[in-house]
Amino acid sequence: MNFTSDNASGIAPEIMAAIARANEGAAASYGDDEITKRLTHRFSEIFEHEVAVFPVVTGTAANALALAAFTPPHGAVFCHAHAHLNVDECGAPEMFTAGAKLLSVEGAMGKMTPQTLHDALGHLFPGLVHHIQAATLSLTQATEMGTVYRLDEIAELAAVAHERGLAVHMDGARLANAVVSLGRPPAEITWKAGVDVLSFGATKNGALAAEAVVFFDPARAADFIFRRKRSGHLVSKMRFLSAQLEAYLDDDLWLRLAAHANAMATRLAEGLRRIPGGKVHYPVEANEVFVRLPLTRLRKLWLNGASFHPWPVEGDSEEEQSARLVTSFATRVEDIDRLLALAGD
Amino acid sequence: MNFTSDNASGIAPEIMAAIARANEGAAASYGDDEITKRLTHRFSEIFEHEVAVFPVVTGTAANALALAAFTPPHGAVFCHAHAHLNVDECGAPEMFTAGAKLLSVEGAMGKMTPQTLHDALGHLFPGLVHHIQAATLSLTQATEMGTVYRLDEIAELAAVAHERGLAVHMDGARLANAVVSLGRPPAEITWKAGVDVLSFGATKNGALAAEAVVFFDPARAADFIFRRKRSGHLVSKMRFLSAQLEAYLDDDLWLRLAAHANAMATRLAEGLRRIPGGKVHYPVEANEVFVRLPLTRLRKLWLNGASFHPWPVEGDSEEEQSARLVTSFATRVEDIDRLLALAGD
Amino acid sequence: MNFTSDNASGIAPEIMAAIARANEGAAASYGDDEITKRLTHRFSEIFEHEVAVFPVVTGTAANALALAAFTPPHGAVFCHAHAHLNVDECGAPEMFTAGAKLLSVEGAMGKMTPQTLHDALGHLFPGLVHHIQAATLSLTQATEMGTVYRLDEIAELAAVAHERGLAVHMDGARLANAVVSLGRPPAEITWKAGVDVLSFGATKNGALAAEAVVFFDPARAADFIFRRKRSGHLVSKMRFLSAQLEAYLDDDLWLRLAAHANAMATRLAEGLRRIPGGKVHYPVEANEVFVRLPLTRLRKLWLNGASFHPWPVEGDSEEEQSARLVTSFATRVEDIDRLLALAGD
Amino acid sequence: MNFTSDNASGIAPEIMAAIARANEGAAASYGDDEITKRLTHRFSEIFEHEVAVFPVVTGTAANALALAAFTPPHGAVFCHAHAHLNVDECGAPEMFTAGAKLLSVEGAMGKMTPQTLHDALGHLFPGLVHHIQAATLSLTQATEMGTVYRLDEIAELAAVAHERGLAVHMDGARLANAVVSLGRPPAEITWKAGVDVLSFGATKNGALAAEAVVFFDPARAADFIFRRKRSGHLVSKMRFLSAQLEAYLDDDLWLRLAAHANAMATRLAEGLRRIPGGKVHYPVEANEVFVRLPLTRLRKLWLNGASFHPWPVEGDSEEEQSARLVTSFATRVEDIDRLLALAGD
Repeated sequence: MNFTSDNASGIAPEIMAAIARANEGAAASYGDDEITKRLTHRFSEIFEHEVAVFPVVTGTAANALALAAFTPPHGAVFCHAHAHLNVDECGAPEMFTAGAKLLSVEGAMGKMTPQTLHDALGHLFPGLVHHIQAATLSLTQATEMGTVYRLDEIAELAAVAHERGLAVHMDGARLANAVVSLGRPPAEITWKAGVDVLSFGATKNGALAAEAVVFFDPARAADFIFRRKRSGHLVSKMRFLSAQLEAYLDDDLWLRLAAHANAMATRLAEGLRRIPGGKVHYPVEANEVFVRLPLTRLRKLWLNGASFHPWPVEGDSEEEQSARLVTSFATRVEDIDRLLALAGD
Repeated sequence: MNFTSDNASGIAPEIMAAIARANEGAAASYGDDEITKRLTHRFSEIFEHEVAVFPVVTGTAANALALAAFTPPHGAVFCHAHAHLNVDECGAPEMFTAGAKLLSVEGAMGKMTPQTLHDALGHLFPGLVHHIQAATLSLTQATEMGTVYRLDEIAELAAVAHERGLAVHMDGARLANAVVSLGRPPAEITWKAGVDVLSFGATKNGALAAEAVVFFDPARAADFIFRRKRSGHLVSKMRFLSAQLEAYLDDDLWLRLAAHANAMATRLAEGLRRIPGGKVHYPVEANEVFVRLPLTRLRKLWLNGASFHPWPVEGDSEEEQSARLVTSFATRVEDIDRLLALAGD
Repeated sequence: MNFTSDNASGIAPEIMAAIARANEGAAASYGDDEITKRLTHRFSEIFEHEVAVFPVVTGTAANALALAAFTPPHGAVFCHAHAHLNVDECGAPEMFTAGAKLLSVEGAMGKMTPQTLHDALGHLFPGLVHHIQAATLSLTQATEMGTVYRLDEIAELAAVAHERGLAVHMDGARLANAVVSLGRPPAEITWKAGVDVLSFGATKNGALAAEAVVFFDPARAADFIFRRKRSGHLVSKMRFLSAQLEAYLDDDLWLRLAAHANAMATRLAEGLRRIPGGKVHYPVEANEVFVRLPLTRLRKLWLNGASFHPWPVEGDSEEEQSARLVTSFATRVEDIDRLLALAGD
Repeated sequence: MNFTSDNASGIAPEIMAAIARANEGAAASYGDDEITKRLTHRFSEIFEHEVAVFPVVTGTAANALALAAFTPPHGAVFCHAHAHLNVDECGAPEMFTAGAKLLSVEGAMGKMTPQTLHDALGHLFPGLVHHIQAATLSLTQATEMGTVYRLDEIAELAAVAHERGLAVHMDGARLANAVVSLGRPPAEITWKAGVDVLSFGATKNGALAAEAVVFFDPARAADFIFRRKRSGHLVSKMRFLSAQLEAYLDDDLWLRLAAHANAMATRLAEGLRRIPGGKVHYPVEANEVFVRLPLTRLRKLWLNGASFHPWPVEGDSEEEQSARLVTSFATRVEDIDRLLALAGD
């Protein structure tokens, strides 16, 4: 009953098998192998657009490298106040951009709105020498609150950004969960809606350690290989990263795994809503559930081996506190049901 | 017959098995898992000293992070002119140190000497405000020329460095090959000889992607976790990195794999020396062979499927050119012999 | 009638004379001259404490260098949301710290409070690897709203900061105005109240271009000279910077100049409050006046040659808008009176 | 008899007068004043080309900012092994470029040659991901050895650089001395010979503290204002920097001052060559003289109040040592003659 995070899960069997398959004989290193060469084509198919693809091992690296490609040192990145890259990456975007600034945009349920973005942009005057210059918008999909930007929401935010000359980055650490949730082709919720560069996550959804930075305009990726190398993120035995990503995309594995995780979250949320005193905070649109429960019930869960993070939410009291529960491709129905049984007892 | 690099090899079976074993159930992420917790103890045993250990995925990351822990932005790193971190890491040490400078030290066969180090240090005046300040010495073991620093050589260089107040870093991307070559315990050629921080390599010698930064004075590692996270090198499913390193150390696997690679290089070098017109450039003390051969023979090798890098060496001519051949844990005797047969024919 | 900024003023005659006096014969460069050598003693007298002093040419440089001495790349600087270094220095603190983060603290009238500081600190967990680490508090004195932190306010904020292990920086671009306003010795409102490092401004108050970074614990300044040099802020003919600072301190010139500027602001504010529809926004405690006036009156002022910046404040309407008027050592009573006559007419 | 450096001299009377003239009334700050606005036109006239001009206070700032405009973090700057920016700026170029690398080019008498530049370039393979990428060539004019690149030498070096896609920077801290020495219009030895960006020095030749970065293609200067501000080099009372530069250019003051300094150096060198045991090391083409003298004579000079720096040169012995003597606009004939009399006695 581990609901601490989707990265507490292991490796999906199909991906494990792909790593083993890739381990036959010697192969060119640093990405000159056959598997890596196939990736560009594979991603271009999936996204129905010519793309440039760069595997890396962490989401933090993917985000920081993607932002650095579009943000000068005197630039500003606009992101949600709670965005992972703003609060949980120990300043990686600042390091990779050589000191750009992240400016917080407000918004309920983890989503900024065209109005809050517009307001935030209003603090910077284009061309004023004393001000950093607006450079990039970063959207997290699914969001830190387990919600999902709808297609029109993305398009509107991207339009506001593009109008001011900003590039649009999507932090897709949980992109698969969002694709499944929206039921739309990946192309529609990315480049067709205005996304310029994507952090495409696989680790939280079944890979060992594999993410990809996807440029929808390959010309913008011209110096990316140097940035990746220089940050220590060019893995020598690249075939093993690429093999993970290839298997992840094959036969819609990524969507099947995410569909399971999302379904588990929905089941969990439905059960928690029925617990006396249970309040699910946000719409459960991906694989995260934020819930307030009586402390007595939370304690009981912990004592019986359920693990998840306390997650203070405004309105909590001493008796009723909030927690975050994350499901994954590996979450079992019986774990959900056992947790619900314990909590409701 | 792939002799391009040891990172063209795959994953050793014991390490693959360890990854598979680690893939059971959920585990705490970001290094709070049981395997990672065991690592500190394991490395402390191997090095006969209390150490702090931090797994990362690339040697470039290990080097740049280790150097950044000891080198301020206005500091200088002294390294061999041909050091990997000087020429083949696209400026990673400069990025991670926020702009420190690498100063080249000369020396035959990939090794600096106390004299050449002393001379290089002489260009910087301690405390002079216009000069960067000498901060770190980095030694590569085994060297870029496939030679190995002897114990007394390391100790003498470290003494010169410490006298000037520099910390001593060892780039041990091929440390196992050096340990086997010298036949000395790891402790003796590292901290006992004056090494303060070590990039401990495993990838080139059988891991998927696993290196470790090892601090021999854990107090100096106080802010390392932030530097690692901030550079995108804190892998979420850390257990899979740690499992590689654990298996690598178990039952002396690392030394057995390196012993094989070294033996293959020795066999290769001996054979090449017998080829008419063949000249092996440096003592073959690890798993790399640098050889000059008649171009006709090199061409024949390439045409018959042998792969290795041309490697210009002073004295090459149009007819006789040099190449680098690297062996690994996966190199087979028959590959060596076939290559020698082709070359000698 | 130039009220755009105190840096629109020129050089005070006493300071100009000191530059001319310093221009006799040759002198050692880079700070080895006699005038610069005297500065440390002079500042130590003024602040009743042994200090280390480093002249630079801009307030931005002083702030960024001071912060960088106390803030690692993975550190956080807490400052008021409107702090000059947060909004008007184009990311200089981020550049000089190699990517640290500025976190905004709220507070009315340009001042943070112990509570708002405490709340802001609460977002960062000490030691949590995903979070940047709280490193520095920066207070602006006088504030961006022309108010002045009282002695007890500084002491309380510094106490909150020190308890969490943060160093305390004071941006004293307008320190003289604050000293005069509070009527307290410089020592009391700086190190005795908990300030560790000070940006001591002179440019806005009569210098050509001269600021000083003042460390109240000289041991913390150990590598400052390298940081200053490396950022291009070690001026070769340093005597001319030091001469400005020396003249600035002689015979309390700095306090006399600031007293005049403050008095002019008070006179201005009193007059503006009497204008029909005039509303002065904040207590006028230094040399800045923020006022809302009917647009017709503002227009009249501009048309008659008064210059000052529009400064939107919440509550402004199309008919009534706000502006900032800054006085300086060079502001003349007749300018004030003429502006008031025009505005009130 | 101060020959330590040209920056030991003070301010030329014409420049001092211009500062005083600029100190009348209020003026727009940060470069919006009338004097600064005139500068672009003035420099464009002097260089017979439309230029973009940015005043800063130090040569280190000018160099580092100019290089940063053309060199990405993964870029390489090629400069002479003895270049000021390589050895005497405490890593400023590395800081401003966010970690680019300076690669040394050899060459006698402070000058690189097309061949040594070509050889140095040969170490970097364009596009190879492990290598930093060649970005900029920096030439020092006059050189650190007091020699001057001839027009054809500049043109040839710039041609080699441009062929490889590098931009060409000229460190003109002593440009005036070089212009006088060559007797050619400034345009001919800069942009017409292939220089893209120039650090135009005035401080060593009579200014208080004033240098300018001059872009010969203003389009390349698009984000320079942000870089300057962000590094703390946008001086608020800019009129006083611009007034120095304007006066420096008026009536050929810069050339007249440099002509005097050069003539003094020539007179000094001629005298030193006649001293028994005196050896002048390099052609004296600007305002620096490097001379070997018997130690007894050097000691006598020092004891009698002459000041200059020891400057070890290969071939020095215990009895005969080398020194650097720098003349300036303020050097007097009688100082030269007195020094020569003392040395020759």
